[in-house]
Amino acid sequence: MASNEAPDIVVGRLPIYLRALTFMAEEGREITSSQELSEKLGISSAQIRKDLSHFGEFGKQGTGYEIAYLRDQLKRILHVEHTWPVALAGYGDLGHALANYGGFAAKGFEIVALFDTAPHKIGQELAGKQVRDLAELPTVVREKNIKVAIVAVPSAEAQGVANMLVESGIKAILNYAPINISVPADVQVQYIDPAAHLQHMTYYLE
Amino acid sequence: MASNEAPDIVVGRLPIYLRALTFMAEEGREITSSQELSEKLGISSAQIRKDLSHFGEFGKQGTGYEIAYLRDQLKRILHVEHTWPVALAGYGDLGHALANYGGFAAKGFEIVALFDTAPHKIGQELAGKQVRDLAELPTVVREKNIKVAIVAVPSAEAQGVANMLVESGIKAILNYAPINISVPADVQVQYIDPAAHLQHMTYYLE
Repeated sequence: MASNEAPDIVVGRLPIYLRALTFMAEEGREITSSQELSEKLGISSAQIRKDLSHFGEFGKQGTGYEIAYLRDQLKRILHVEHTWPVALAGYGDLGHALANYGGFAAKGFEIVALFDTAPHKIGQELAGKQVRDLAELPTVVREKNIKVAIVAVPSAEAQGVANMLVESGIKAILNYAPINISVPADVQVQYIDPAAHLQHMTYYLE
Repeated sequence: MASNEAPDIVVGRLPIYLRALTFMAEEGREITSSQELSEKLGISSAQIRKDLSHFGEFGKQGTGYEIAYLRDQLKRILHVEHTWPVALAGYGDLGHALANYGGFAAKGFEIVALFDTAPHKIGQELAGKQVRDLAELPTVVREKNIKVAIVAVPSAEAQGVANMLVESGIKAILNYAPINISVPADVQVQYIDPAAHLQHMTYYLE
C-alpha cells in the first residue's frame, strides 16, 4: 500500500483504468480481468497488474477484478469520491465549450467560476454562473477554496494567468494553451496537447 | 531498430519527448541528458533511455543527446517530418477553437476541411477555409486523401460521425466527445479527456 511510492507515470494511467471500469460498470458488467483491460487499452496485462499492485491487492488469481469495487478504489486513490470545484480562466470559444462540457460531473469536477478580461464577456451567464473579471479571481478562489483551475486563454496570456492562479492558492493547473508554463514545485501542471495525440497515431500510419 | 516492436505505451511517450526537445531547441539549447528530461517530464531517466532504445541509438554515454538530432529522429519516427491534412467534424465552440488553434502547424498537422450540419454554419469561412455540409465529408476526404480527423461534435452524434469518417477512409480519429466510440481494428482512436488529466493531479492533492 506504498501509494506515495508510485511513479507519476503509473498515477497517470489510473484515470485511464478508471474510465474503462466506469464504462464497463455502465454496461452492467461485474467482473473483468487484466487481459480484458489490456485488449481495451493497449497496455500489457502484466503492466496493468504491476500498476495496480502499487496501491493494494484488488484482484484474485483466476477470478479477476470486481469492476465496481476497483472503480471505487481508484476513485478513492485519485481523490475523486467527492467533487472538486474548478476555476476556468478564459471564456472564449474554448472556455465556452469547456463550461458546457458534459464530461466533468461524473469524474469528480465542477466548474464553479468563470473568468475573462473582455468587458463584453464579464457578466454573461451560463447555467447560473456569471463570467467575472479576471481581477476578481484571487478573491473568488480563496472564498470558494478552489485548488484546481483550467487555463483556456491565448498563449501570450497563459503564463500571466498561471502566475495569478498560483498566487491565489491554486495547486493544479490544466493548460490548454500550446506553450509550457512555469510554476513552483508544489503546483502541478498538465497539458491538453491534441497534436501529441495525433502524433501518437501517425506513428502507425503510412 | 525493431520499431514495430515498441509497445503502444512507449509510442505514446515519444510526442512528450518531442515536445520537450522542441522547446529546448527553441531556447537555443544543443545537448540534453536523460536526467534532465527526467526532471522536466517526471519520467525516470532509465525509462526514457529504455523507451528511446526501441528506436535506435541516439545518445552517447557521458555526452547525452544532441537535441536537434533527437528531435528530428523523433519527427521521422512519428511520421511528422511532413504535414498531415486533417478533417475537423463539428464547428461549434470547440470546433471553432480548434480551427484557430496555434499548436498544430509546428507539430505536423493542418486542419484543411471543416464540417458541420447546421445550415447557418455551412458556408462560413475561416482563414480561407469554408465550413461544408457534413454530407460532403466522404467526397472531400477522398479528394484530399485525408487520413486523420478530429471529432468535435456532441456526444450523441460522435459515433455516427465516426462511422462516416471510417467509411470515408480515415485511419486516425481524435475524439473530444466524452464517450467511447467503436471503430474497426485498423482505425485508431485517441481521446481528449480533460477530467483524466485533472484526476492525475488530484491524486497529489488533499
